[in-house]
Amino acid sequence: MVLLDGKKTSSDIKDEIKVTVTTMKERGEKVPHLAAVLVGSDGASLTYVGSKVRACEYVGFDSTLVELPDTTTEEELLNTIKGLNENDDIDGFIVQLPLPKHIDEQKVLMAVSPDKDVDGFHPENFGKMALDMESFIPATPFGILQLLERYQVETKGKHTVVIGRSHIVGRPMSILMSQKGPAGNSTVTLTHSYTKNLSEITKQADIIIVALGVPEFLKADMVKEGVVIVDVGISRVPDASKKRGYAIKGDVAFAEVSEKASFITPVPGGVGPMTIAMLLKNTLLARERNT
Amino acid sequence: MVLLDGKKTSSDIKDEIKVTVTTMKERGEKVPHLAAVLVGSDGASLTYVGSKVRACEYVGFDSTLVELPDTTTEEELLNTIKGLNENDDIDGFIVQLPLPKHIDEQKVLMAVSPDKDVDGFHPENFGKMALDMESFIPATPFGILQLLERYQVETKGKHTVVIGRSHIVGRPMSILMSQKGPAGNSTVTLTHSYTKNLSEITKQADIIIVALGVPEFLKADMVKEGVVIVDVGISRVPDASKKRGYAIKGDVAFAEVSEKASFITPVPGGVGPMTIAMLLKNTLLARERNT
Repeated sequence: MVLLDGKKTSSDIKDEIKVTVTTMKERGEKVPHLAAVLVGSDGASLTYVGSKVRACEYVGFDSTLVELPDTTTEEELLNTIKGLNENDDIDGFIVQLPLPKHIDEQKVLMAVSPDKDVDGFHPENFGKMALDMESFIPATPFGILQLLERYQVETKGKHTVVIGRSHIVGRPMSILMSQKGPAGNSTVTLTHSYTKNLSEITKQADIIIVALGVPEFLKADMVKEGVVIVDVGISRVPDASKKRGYAIKGDVAFAEVSEKASFITPVPGGVGPMTIAMLLKNTLLARERNT
Repeated sequence: MVLLDGKKTSSDIKDEIKVTVTTMKERGEKVPHLAAVLVGSDGASLTYVGSKVRACEYVGFDSTLVELPDTTTEEELLNTIKGLNENDDIDGFIVQLPLPKHIDEQKVLMAVSPDKDVDGFHPENFGKMALDMESFIPATPFGILQLLERYQVETKGKHTVVIGRSHIVGRPMSILMSQKGPAGNSTVTLTHSYTKNLSEITKQADIIIVALGVPEFLKADMVKEGVVIVDVGISRVPDASKKRGYAIKGDVAFAEVSEKASFITPVPGGVGPMTIAMLLKNTLLARERNT
């Protein structure tokens, strides 16, 4: 069994980006510039945005954090976005979700210029992705593809079963892995809450991608020997034996499933750490497409 | 076995649209206006565009045919499209494909305003479709959904196998049938040229959608009893017994497969006739969204 080590892989990717940025600087080129818009003071959002800014610093990107109060109106936020769209110095930007309830999230995401939409959440980018055109692939699916590719997991002609049809993970993974290209050409089955006899389907899978948010959902008796497992779930489960009072669990019963798997992502340290690395990668792509 | 009669269903839909248009007229409202751009004089394209114009007349839409010579430059075509985008009288328009080789098809499709893109080929519409947002669903997939819905074919929790991953049929069908909504909530497997043991997969299917373009590809021994079959293929096969010298064949060996099927589309007269009806439906939607 081989661990698909997201911590190491994301660190490798960040170091590769750092090298590229150093070369850009030496050549006197403009370095990539990522902006993040944070509305309100949600603790988790602050932490995420903070990590993104620090990651920018690490690889040598310029970064701008636009902090807006909870009371920001939709119109004010749309104006901020317009400003970022028009600011030639900024290559890409993200609007940290969730937004306060009085703001229409979809309207906001639609306002981001597709050329700067490094989160890949704009429908135009999503559509381009589905139509095999150049786009920004959302960070989590992009990270999973990179993990599979870098560990040389064969996907061509394999049967991949995706569990969960979310817009952020399940749906794009089902599209990407059945496309031509690296980590593609897989026969993909997308399963969800209405799927009957799920374990009959998962038992046929060469590769399983689980993105449900149900701790330890996937058990050993649901998979075949040699399966490749990508676990996107991350939940806090009460655990008195831990100092902080909880344990972090994925959607896979790791202890038992890992005994049958050929490759498996740990949680934490699997898919999670890849996300920020791929956001940086998209920002670098935005810079390169801008020149 | 029930025939999924596309000829009758498309005729029903056209009549429904006709009634709506009559009401619009009675109320003094502007009726939907579809424009079609035809570049060059390809025989098949002329036929298709002609049918679209006649269908508009039948339901009471206004229609405009923009005929451009083979020698039209890409820039001229883009200017024509810009004009149609800006023309408030036109609710939706299509650019008939294929285009002459010196014109970049992707560039042209990207130039069509997503709000008037009644073919649903613009990536923004494709992305919206994949993200469960209001959009224009491409005519053929939209037609298949309508057939399944109107014949009350149960899709929820069923296993649908899509054969072929084209941008026009296979890919959108795999997305639509696994989404929430009518003719959705199906467990979908998307298969293609790299799929191994295809018949093992098709034998598990409750619903099979074939869009390969290989005459009589799907045989009876590849399907289970009671299967629902949607045949998108349409090929000309030499046939000396026919006056015109060829027969029209779908991707399904109809004679043998229909004996096992619970529902099946004939070819011709199945999916084919639905396409124009759904183009009209999209144009009507465009009009309604415009008001």
